[in-house]
Amino acid sequence: MLSIKFKNNRLFYLDQTELPVKEVWRECKAASDGYIAIKQLRVRGAPLIGVFAGYVIFIAAKSFPCQRKLFLKHFFATIQHIRSSRPTAVNLFWALERIEKAVSQCFSGDGRYIRQIILKEAINIHHEDINLCAHMARYGVSLIKNGDNILTHCNTGFLATSGVGTALAVIYKAHKQRKHIHVYVDETRPLLQGARLTAWELVKKRVPCTLICDNMAASLMWRGLIDKVFVGADRIAANGDAANKIGTYNVAVIAYYHRIPFYVVAPFSTFDLTLSSGSRIPIEQRSGEELLRLFSKTAIAPRNVAVYNPAFDVTPASLISAIVSDKGIVHPPYKQNIQKLLRK
Amino acid sequence: MLSIKFKNNRLFYLDQTELPVKEVWRECKAASDGYIAIKQLRVRGAPLIGVFAGYVIFIAAKSFPCQRKLFLKHFFATIQHIRSSRPTAVNLFWALERIEKAVSQCFSGDGRYIRQIILKEAINIHHEDINLCAHMARYGVSLIKNGDNILTHCNTGFLATSGVGTALAVIYKAHKQRKHIHVYVDETRPLLQGARLTAWELVKKRVPCTLICDNMAASLMWRGLIDKVFVGADRIAANGDAANKIGTYNVAVIAYYHRIPFYVVAPFSTFDLTLSSGSRIPIEQRSGEELLRLFSKTAIAPRNVAVYNPAFDVTPASLISAIVSDKGIVHPPYKQNIQKLLRK
Repeated sequence: MLSIKFKNNRLFYLDQTELPVKEVWRECKAASDGYIAIKQLRVRGAPLIGVFAGYVIFIAAKSFPCQRKLFLKHFFATIQHIRSSRPTAVNLFWALERIEKAVSQCFSGDGRYIRQIILKEAINIHHEDINLCAHMARYGVSLIKNGDNILTHCNTGFLATSGVGTALAVIYKAHKQRKHIHVYVDETRPLLQGARLTAWELVKKRVPCTLICDNMAASLMWRGLIDKVFVGADRIAANGDAANKIGTYNVAVIAYYHRIPFYVVAPFSTFDLTLSSGSRIPIEQRSGEELLRLFSKTAIAPRNVAVYNPAFDVTPASLISAIVSDKGIVHPPYKQNIQKLLRK
Repeated sequence: MLSIKFKNNRLFYLDQTELPVKEVWRECKAASDGYIAIKQLRVRGAPLIGVFAGYVIFIAAKSFPCQRKLFLKHFFATIQHIRSSRPTAVNLFWALERIEKAVSQCFSGDGRYIRQIILKEAINIHHEDINLCAHMARYGVSLIKNGDNILTHCNTGFLATSGVGTALAVIYKAHKQRKHIHVYVDETRPLLQGARLTAWELVKKRVPCTLICDNMAASLMWRGLIDKVFVGADRIAANGDAANKIGTYNVAVIAYYHRIPFYVVAPFSTFDLTLSSGSRIPIEQRSGEELLRLFSKTAIAPRNVAVYNPAFDVTPASLISAIVSDKGIVHPPYKQNIQKLLRK
């Protein structure tokens, strides 16, 4: 199972807005294709956006003038353009900075040469992401016991990364180890990444699962049917506050009330130590249309009602039992322990 | 604004499954029409179901044989049939019992005569419901201050009663008193009663409102944008535990965590003192299809995934700040105070 493919210098992506009804692969042929794919959530998931963005710069660079100065001018403009596609997930900025840094360290050579540098770094980021996923799974699986019922929100699997995933990778690992687990999947309104993507992945992987509406999780917890919560993250501040798909904070509060462990799984590239706390994470506001019409078609509310539609919320560190990263599991106090971990 | 009409001995209802796109009125011509209307949620809202059921029995009785014994046989069978349409809201059973009691007290007379008794009682229940709504609004409005931001879940207005509503009636009253309020409306998955019905009502009534997904409420509370929560109830046990639309318990937990008052508004007919606690309230399980396809059409999840779809959850009394009824506001301790109130 793959979410993007890079083959013969061409970049393809599975259009996630078409799932689960159709599996449509599209080619990204220019920067504008890449921008739209990210903006419209055809390619989504914090780590995947980072990997994809690296390749997008390479694809875009095909059409840059070969003369060094002109090439660099186009390069930096394109970096800026792709950077503006989504504001919350830090992995996008992190990947673009890596590409930028690699290019900045290349003091001579024409466009053709610099393009190879870009490609090399994009491939590095890609391979690294695959490894990060495997490491997170390895560390995180120690938190799952035989018989656990696990709640998850949004999508954090194959479709959110270029590897096996973040939170879902931990779940896949537990399933592979033949721990008898059951996954409850929040459908994750408004864009239904849980229903469309996570349920689709879990069914394909034959992991026992049950789909629920986001508002049903508390009732399951009350009945003692949830043992643990695993979610991903789009950006984690220095103090452990974590931005993730809207509704995650809701899950964290109800888990806390029912004394259920709440775990965040994210690679080191999701941490943003320049932000002291989660209140400084910019939150993307999306179009109200996402709540008024399903898939931009079927009306589900009166046309003229006001809508509040943030794409993310921030879960305070105090509600997070532990953060699983590719370098190990971080426990509170997060401020010190995150710094220690990232220095590894 | 009306949800049902009874005119010239004919019963009409606004088909709520067609809202907000179309306002379709249908006639209920037989018991089977009434059963389907309730079962398929064309007519919904605990108090409205009760009122509607009374008239359905009258309509059904048109086709019963006139001979007393035969009439009564059909009558009791129809009561049983309509009673089985939905299991959680107690108002349905309460209304049917009232009709039954009225008929039982009528020791002579043929079918034609008994039908008039049924009609009289159905009209009584209807007029009573209109008054109950007005009383709840009058008591509840004292809880709303100028400038309050109020969260509500599901639909508890005109469309849920035959009067102005329960929780929404309180909000309408505050708006009428020119208190500057703003209502945040949970869309209320899976059947979107908030988006389709409550938003539609509030826009029509020009009450300032904003539609949100159910999973966004916690993020609003975190930002200090919710001052109070008002919801309805389908059945309230003797200890104050309240069954209401799925997701209500979720809202109660997050409100409690953020120290936001959580109010339940329901008429006396919603209380069921035969049940000592909420754990004894039967919870209707609905078809998984409601999560897999929107409006039985558009697929939003893989077809073969398991689904958990309870129509209601139970909010424990400990999370309820007060219950607003038509007889006054009940505060904890609920066990004693509910009994006192209902004796009034």
